[in-house]
Amino acid sequence: MQHSEIGVVHTKVERPDPDLVERLSAFGVATVHEAMGRVGLMRPYIRPVYAGARLCGPAVTVLLQPGDNWMLHVAAEQVQEGDVLVAACTTECEDGFFGDLLATSLRARGCRGLVIDGGVRDVADLEEMEFPVFSRAINAKGTIKATLGSVNIPVVLANAFVRPGDVVVADVDGVVVVPQERLLEVLEAAAKREANEEGKRATFAGGTLGLDLYEMREPLAALGLRYED
Amino acid sequence: MQHSEIGVVHTKVERPDPDLVERLSAFGVATVHEAMGRVGLMRPYIRPVYAGARLCGPAVTVLLQPGDNWMLHVAAEQVQEGDVLVAACTTECEDGFFGDLLATSLRARGCRGLVIDGGVRDVADLEEMEFPVFSRAINAKGTIKATLGSVNIPVVLANAFVRPGDVVVADVDGVVVVPQERLLEVLEAAAKREANEEGKRATFAGGTLGLDLYEMREPLAALGLRYED
Amino acid sequence: MQHSEIGVVHTKVERPDPDLVERLSAFGVATVHEAMGRVGLMRPYIRPVYAGARLCGPAVTVLLQPGDNWMLHVAAEQVQEGDVLVAACTTECEDGFFGDLLATSLRARGCRGLVIDGGVRDVADLEEMEFPVFSRAINAKGTIKATLGSVNIPVVLANAFVRPGDVVVADVDGVVVVPQERLLEVLEAAAKREANEEGKRATFAGGTLGLDLYEMREPLAALGLRYED
Amino acid sequence: MQHSEIGVVHTKVERPDPDLVERLSAFGVATVHEAMGRVGLMRPYIRPVYAGARLCGPAVTVLLQPGDNWMLHVAAEQVQEGDVLVAACTTECEDGFFGDLLATSLRARGCRGLVIDGGVRDVADLEEMEFPVFSRAINAKGTIKATLGSVNIPVVLANAFVRPGDVVVADVDGVVVVPQERLLEVLEAAAKREANEEGKRATFAGGTLGLDLYEMREPLAALGLRYED
Amino acid sequence: MQHSEIGVVHTKVERPDPDLVERLSAFGVATVHEAMGRVGLMRPYIRPVYAGARLCGPAVTVLLQPGDNWMLHVAAEQVQEGDVLVAACTTECEDGFFGDLLATSLRARGCRGLVIDGGVRDVADLEEMEFPVFSRAINAKGTIKATLGSVNIPVVLANAFVRPGDVVVADVDGVVVVPQERLLEVLEAAAKREANEEGKRATFAGGTLGLDLYEMREPLAALGLRYED
Amino acid sequence: MQHSEIGVVHTKVERPDPDLVERLSAFGVATVHEAMGRVGLMRPYIRPVYAGARLCGPAVTVLLQPGDNWMLHVAAEQVQEGDVLVAACTTECEDGFFGDLLATSLRARGCRGLVIDGGVRDVADLEEMEFPVFSRAINAKGTIKATLGSVNIPVVLANAFVRPGDVVVADVDGVVVVPQERLLEVLEAAAKREANEEGKRATFAGGTLGLDLYEMREPLAALGLRYED
Repeated sequence: MQHSEIGVVHTKVERPDPDLVERLSAFGVATVHEAMGRVGLMRPYIRPVYAGARLCGPAVTVLLQPGDNWMLHVAAEQVQEGDVLVAACTTECEDGFFGDLLATSLRARGCRGLVIDGGVRDVADLEEMEFPVFSRAINAKGTIKATLGSVNIPVVLANAFVRPGDVVVADVDGVVVVPQERLLEVLEAAAKREANEEGKRATFAGGTLGLDLYEMREPLAALGLRYED
Repeated sequence: MQHSEIGVVHTKVERPDPDLVERLSAFGVATVHEAMGRVGLMRPYIRPVYAGARLCGPAVTVLLQPGDNWMLHVAAEQVQEGDVLVAACTTECEDGFFGDLLATSLRARGCRGLVIDGGVRDVADLEEMEFPVFSRAINAKGTIKATLGSVNIPVVLANAFVRPGDVVVADVDGVVVVPQERLLEVLEAAAKREANEEGKRATFAGGTLGLDLYEMREPLAALGLRYED
Repeated sequence: MQHSEIGVVHTKVERPDPDLVERLSAFGVATVHEAMGRVGLMRPYIRPVYAGARLCGPAVTVLLQPGDNWMLHVAAEQVQEGDVLVAACTTECEDGFFGDLLATSLRARGCRGLVIDGGVRDVADLEEMEFPVFSRAINAKGTIKATLGSVNIPVVLANAFVRPGDVVVADVDGVVVVPQERLLEVLEAAAKREANEEGKRATFAGGTLGLDLYEMREPLAALGLRYED
Repeated sequence: MQHSEIGVVHTKVERPDPDLVERLSAFGVATVHEAMGRVGLMRPYIRPVYAGARLCGPAVTVLLQPGDNWMLHVAAEQVQEGDVLVAACTTECEDGFFGDLLATSLRARGCRGLVIDGGVRDVADLEEMEFPVFSRAINAKGTIKATLGSVNIPVVLANAFVRPGDVVVADVDGVVVVPQERLLEVLEAAAKREANEEGKRATFAGGTLGLDLYEMREPLAALGLRYED
Repeated sequence: MQHSEIGVVHTKVERPDPDLVERLSAFGVATVHEAMGRVGLMRPYIRPVYAGARLCGPAVTVLLQPGDNWMLHVAAEQVQEGDVLVAACTTECEDGFFGDLLATSLRARGCRGLVIDGGVRDVADLEEMEFPVFSRAINAKGTIKATLGSVNIPVVLANAFVRPGDVVVADVDGVVVVPQERLLEVLEAAAKREANEEGKRATFAGGTLGLDLYEMREPLAALGLRYED
Repeated sequence: MQHSEIGVVHTKVERPDPDLVERLSAFGVATVHEAMGRVGLMRPYIRPVYAGARLCGPAVTVLLQPGDNWMLHVAAEQVQEGDVLVAACTTECEDGFFGDLLATSLRARGCRGLVIDGGVRDVADLEEMEFPVFSRAINAKGTIKATLGSVNIPVVLANAFVRPGDVVVADVDGVVVVPQERLLEVLEAAAKREANEEGKRATFAGGTLGLDLYEMREPLAALGLRYED
């Protein structure tokens, strides 16, 4: 399974333990990204196509050609219950690769949503179906079916590297990719961070300043920060 | 009536049969665009200014000068019940050419909405009035009234060519322009496509794959697509 | 208090009369911007992070370094009841400088919201808290605490100049800055404009055209506008 | 010959008098655009791919599909001595539709250059060949040959409307389109403007101000411009 | 002299010592920006319009209205030998505000160049004249003369704050603004930095690494950087 | 060696046979990209900082933090004769991470150039030194040295995946990455393509059309392309 090979469908994807994925889905993208050590985030131009869209699941990946959604149909067959479809493109293209029919097909297979470095359409239907999609554009322009890409190879989209079976988490704050082998570690770090934040939230709500909670006054002074009337 | 002449208001617009327009308004932009043969779509940077905005109607066109909305007032007089105002600009400008007062005036004349390759303001009022606007920007910056443009000449905006009387359809997926002489043909193609899609939707919901429904397996194999474990 | 000095916190901000600020908060950004004589508007890439966000208040300003939110903590201490935090950056950066913890801390101090020429995260929480934020991006990417900036110096963000104590008004139409010394004058001009617009709205709703209300027909004809069938 | 029809090659193009084209080629784009009455200019994102590129000639037009340059080969056959090839695309696409081989083929037919709302490659070769190209991007990404477009239909690119036989002028200042029926009029206006500017240039070089040459002091004062120490 | 007042020309500008300006002109923008403490830089979208353009001089400032270059003529009269004209705009506009005639007029008055947050045209002439211009766009689209702005008020452009008499330095690396009162200090810091860099350049050329020259190995190890085969 | 780990420097890079790299350097980016099967190309926003810049060599990779160039110094030590430095960033940042001092240091180690998904400065010096740099921006804004990244881990930049030792080729057409294990294969395909193109060039120069050379007339007709007067 080589990065960027063209014309191949890998039918075997090692997926992570569904319980771990389920537990990860409780955390927001910002928390997961911190738990990752601040790597794995897609560029922020990928946005939810409707308010409130969220998803979490292992990736089935697909590499598309510009203006061509043929491989999405090929990929649909590889999707299993709980998967997220992650679609990269060999070049920048904002055509509408995806709409309500493909969403219906994916949903029938248990797909949890789509992340695509391209455009989508039928957005009103997607919202009504509550099928979460994160994309770079909304665009009614349809696509053709003429050129091979690949399914379940490692792909790069929105500057993030995604391998089949890596876990993708997306919400209003963005899209983050958790490598399968780091899933447990990230889960624990996320839980720890969230517990930690809960306490801080109460402290801040009570009026304590970050300056004091984080003991910042001394290092700021050491760097020369001065207060003036 | 020549493309891009400056300083002219054409008072006679041949409008399409309102019944046909009414029937077209039942279809979404993605469907109409497919029915057109995938031409006539505006660039996707034109977006609705509030969620749920939709419009359909024959165009009254106006060519604006940058930072100047004088011609919108001239155009208002040419608007009739059911029309959509379509505003191009001689250069790229995101100033707020349009707000709630002009919307009130247009509504009083039966106008169905505005598509503008520029900015608009008073967006909260527009949403409350349910006056649909599709624009390239939201911007409080007002405009002056100093330079002539034209009304009801053919215009180009967001890379689409629009003649007075052409039918403009806009929703969350974008904005498409149907040449008046193609209206009936497009209507029929759209109806056919939608009927066709209804059946497909049920098929997909039942779990059939596009690979099988569209008989894609053979052509994919012929191009060399291979499956690997 | 000099523009762009680094490493200083000015603890004394002359704030405007809260009653005047309260009265200004009744007006929308488009109205205030007109009342200002069409200056003081931020570039329109600064957008509300959730639908319905609005704010009005005197500015506490902060100059951030790229990818570093340390100064937001320093600024928090300078915030008083009713203030708006206004954050500029020494360079273009869309990292997530701000999230729900800082929002909680600011709210505890009575802060009315944030305007930032950068990214923010925890947007779902911000919306739930109804803490209004206007930013250039939504981005889960966190920031470090390593480099000094300044608090309560004059700053430039989104091409607008803001001094501590200037009043910032933001809604769906954009963000405008009212210099403290012009507050009364702007308030009066805004009130006058709104009263004036109320009358106009009724006139337009009744079907009168702007061409007639504003007596535009003569100057248009003088410039050579011609009407053709 | 209808705007945006797909799958047609019009083999008959009425071209303007070559002498008029030759005379027009002596003027820069800024002068021609003024002579046109400030219409017909492409959006400024279309740029020369090498310093010093210039072209002038009647358009052979082509409508491309995204990521597909098949129609450029079809268009090449329609090019005659002195023509400029003008390539629009049904959607936004920055792939490299054009390179040195097509340039060689077009040059063999007497083509004067290319304007394309897409990407091109082999730019070093194009510069060495002195084959002028104006494009929206430089991009090594190649294209396929799968879908029909059209040749010699009216097209829209970079927000300009171009019909076969219209004259396209391009230099470092941009790209302007002169409708064939306006060629003589524009030529005369351009010549007049240039003669006029020659005199002005000498006047300005001698130290006279525009304020005096254009008698601006009075209207400025009438609007209330005041001078202060 | 107030920020953003409209309709005023300030005729008295306190200019810095020409000798200091002359000395500053020996330094590049990157060096001056470091000497400033990394503030005062314009956003990098302002670019030279031809290769090799450079300028340095005290600013005469002008605030333009969109698509309107009237105030450039008013500003020309305020320019003295050695000045640089700095043009802001009340909104984003890429029209061609400036061309060879205005350049000729400015040169006749001893102007050293233009920095403009807008478009310019006649770029081939500007290069031939060697009149340096830094702009946000090249655009043949001309402008009108209808609305007042101001001359010699403090302005904001490309997110930098510029007062009349501040010194502007521009080269291929960007544009930086030196407040007049900091000129001597910045000059000294720039000279010191350059002397320092000269030595470093020789050291680096000799093969010494920054890791050793700047003694970075220890702090990197302290943060936990580890080396692996 | 894992994708995106932070705080590690891998000191062992398996480099390809220098003779193969030397042979690859004879081909342009467009040719190599075709030989790769149209994968591996960086997004076209990465541009040469001066005209004529070209490079080819195995990658030493570095992952930077925003506004922080510390890791470039760490990476410099890992560079060997013939290497190209390839710098990714954990977020989008256009600060000037790199200038003439680092270029001098890299050159002293035999480095062939830099590809960076960020900004650079001292561009006039880089051109004079003939040190080729491909970047997303030119920006005088300097950076700090505060946070760890990594050296010689696989990185993603401009949407391309690069591992240490992969060969990077860059010229005016863009930047392409050749996986080390595909080097020989790509070299052969490139040579074959170029030989093939040489013949085609002569054929095209002689007036033969692509329509005939590629036997396109039949498939075009089969799809329904029609010719009309």
